Amino acid sequence: MINIAIMGYGVVGSGVAEVCRVNKETISQRTGQEINIKKILDVRAFPGDPYQDRITRHADDIFTDPEISIVVETIGGTGIALQLSRQALLAGKHMVTSNKELVAAHGPELMALAAERRLSYMYEASVGGGIPIVRPLHKCLSANVIEHITGILNGTTNYILTRMEQEGIRFDQALTEAQKQGYAEQNPTADLDGLDAGRKLAILGSIALGEYIDSNLIHTEGITTITPTDLLYAQHLQMKLKLIGRYQLLPDHRVDLIVAPMLISRKHPVAAADDVFNAIMVNGNALGEAMFYGRGAGKLPTASAVVADVIECALHLDRLPHQRIWRITDREIVRPHADCPVRALLRLHECVPGAQIREAFDAFGARPVEARLASEQAWLVGTDQKLTEGQLEDLLRPFAESLVSRLRLFH
Amino acid sequence: MINIAIMGYGVVGSGVAEVCRVNKETISQRTGQEINIKKILDVRAFPGDPYQDRITRHADDIFTDPEISIVVETIGGTGIALQLSRQALLAGKHMVTSNKELVAAHGPELMALAAERRLSYMYEASVGGGIPIVRPLHKCLSANVIEHITGILNGTTNYILTRMEQEGIRFDQALTEAQKQGYAEQNPTADLDGLDAGRKLAILGSIALGEYIDSNLIHTEGITTITPTDLLYAQHLQMKLKLIGRYQLLPDHRVDLIVAPMLISRKHPVAAADDVFNAIMVNGNALGEAMFYGRGAGKLPTASAVVADVIECALHLDRLPHQRIWRITDREIVRPHADCPVRALLRLHECVPGAQIREAFDAFGARPVEARLASEQAWLVGTDQKLTEGQLEDLLRPFAESLVSRLRLFH
Repeated sequence: MINIAIMGYGVVGSGVAEVCRVNKETISQRTGQEINIKKILDVRAFPGDPYQDRITRHADDIFTDPEISIVVETIGGTGIALQLSRQALLAGKHMVTSNKELVAAHGPELMALAAERRLSYMYEASVGGGIPIVRPLHKCLSANVIEHITGILNGTTNYILTRMEQEGIRFDQALTEAQKQGYAEQNPTADLDGLDAGRKLAILGSIALGEYIDSNLIHTEGITTITPTDLLYAQHLQMKLKLIGRYQLLPDHRVDLIVAPMLISRKHPVAAADDVFNAIMVNGNALGEAMFYGRGAGKLPTASAVVADVIECALHLDRLPHQRIWRITDREIVRPHADCPVRALLRLHECVPGAQIREAFDAFGARPVEARLASEQAWLVGTDQKLTEGQLEDLLRPFAESLVSRLRLFH
Repeated sequence: MINIAIMGYGVVGSGVAEVCRVNKETISQRTGQEINIKKILDVRAFPGDPYQDRITRHADDIFTDPEISIVVETIGGTGIALQLSRQALLAGKHMVTSNKELVAAHGPELMALAAERRLSYMYEASVGGGIPIVRPLHKCLSANVIEHITGILNGTTNYILTRMEQEGIRFDQALTEAQKQGYAEQNPTADLDGLDAGRKLAILGSIALGEYIDSNLIHTEGITTITPTDLLYAQHLQMKLKLIGRYQLLPDHRVDLIVAPMLISRKHPVAAADDVFNAIMVNGNALGEAMFYGRGAGKLPTASAVVADVIECALHLDRLPHQRIWRITDREIVRPHADCPVRALLRLHECVPGAQIREAFDAFGARPVEARLASEQAWLVGTDQKLTEGQLEDLLRPFAESLVSRLRLFH
């Protein structure tokens, strides 16, 4: 029997307990022994819960229990979760986490701490919920140089954009609906502003590159300013508007990283992910492309990934885990946003003369294409342009007053 | 330095060498040491090949070399490949294979032989080419009871069906084109008849169930009789016609298994896989659905999966590998085909009176729906029907002469 503890008995933590209970037989068979939840750390009481007798308010009950070998952290955030994770590793416990914020912010420290003590620190559930992506990227694609990662990494924003597209409703209406459905939190800022997707992209990028990518270095835009008209343009162009996270390896070994709403062809496999689904496409230099698709969040899917890590951990308890550590380097890893190439759909108020727009673009050697649909003037900065984000910024500065929206094209 | 040998220097074997050469630096970094191809077994000579000096015709050169710890088998088939795989394991070599035919036919024996000797026998490349699916199913979904697996598992047939649909061409024309493009072998029987897909389904099913499923027990139909009219019906019904492999776990712990052309909704994520792409959807009781998509074949994608297994193997050389073995049991694992529920699109010659068809169905409590498009009469056996394959067979017997085609609906 392997004894584990869960720190944080919220949505995911209680899901972990549920998966362990419901799939007990399958899990025992695959682990070769029973996995027993011996303690659960939470400040709340859970009367009537099947595990209520195991709940404790004292983390030391877990850390000082020599029978507990694996600790699951499903607290979330970087406060108490960081402190308790450090303590758990220092106490010699293997760790499994679903906490993307913690992995993105303090992954290198915690991985190094684990490695020094020959412990596992596993985080499959931190990206893509139940979708296998962390281990496949680590293990199955290890013979590849990873050239691109393209993903819809956040279910909340994807649900909202899907509803706006399908129902023609406004952002605030779709958000209210998402909250009613339980797909958006009461304070959904981290989702809506793209921060959550940025953290996941940083984790995937760090795995792909083998070097730590700070998610704060990722240019990140959210979806709060998207309007129904933007989605009409997407339809008109045979595209979908998705919050895309993109990692691209450059020939000089730096990377381009961005999280932003982008127009993407309906035919692109990633664009098929609607509602709360996530899709992550990885391009390797030998593999070509592979895509991973599924529910990117939710109690049981996420718990399923946590418990899979617990099983893997249990199978390797007595052995040095082989985890790749993210090196921390001094070099400039992320190319400055202003230097990244960009294509975009620009919408300007009617009052701006077309000739003036063409002239402004001409100064940068770019030729926009008109794509008129509504009462604004819309311009596509076409496929063959070599504008950078910085140049586009400069070019648009005189039009700041009349710019209605700027949507990047995925390329 | 880790020394490996490759047995069989054909498409995949030479791809393995190419991936090792081109991605040498990345692979060394991830393995912690260099992977060196010390010997290559093939009866042919390869003048000018970068590894020509390592080629041998004598398998014993590999088996008796104590420096070689991992042997890659990319010979294919179940003849010499089986014999050499046994010898390699008996000689204490870890093994990595891309040989689906061998894994499907002799997997349990080879896995048991490996386990007895504390060796690895790895086969990620046997299903889905470069798409990670074997390890994710083993490791990432291990906390789930796997309820369904639905896949487009063969790139050759998917390419042919895609061309027939998009160009309106006949099967033989599409096949010729596939052969010209290198997407179909000169003797493509195993692909066209669904045997290749059946072997892959048997491997995935065996992993999901933990018990060995003999691919010969899978009801398998190919695509050689599909006509352009069938594809017109698919379009008419907002569906695609795909060669689908399906695994379903039944409440009594038996499984339904089938490989056959099926009409599947265009909105189903699996249906998005066109051309040579594969897509495999897995449903777990905690996870919900996850899909894996990519190039299911090809030299470098397949080699990329082989080399990933070699790296994993190299990281665990000194340790007992934790691989799940497929138990061999006496029980009836596969539900007899005749007992499986079915829905279908039936096309009959014009001469059969509609009333006669309705009457025949009525006797089985089923009501077909007319879906006329071409000069035949077409009948959909609808969504709420509970017909079994055996009943449908009985029901159609009197119409044998006038039955033009029978296409199952995916459900």
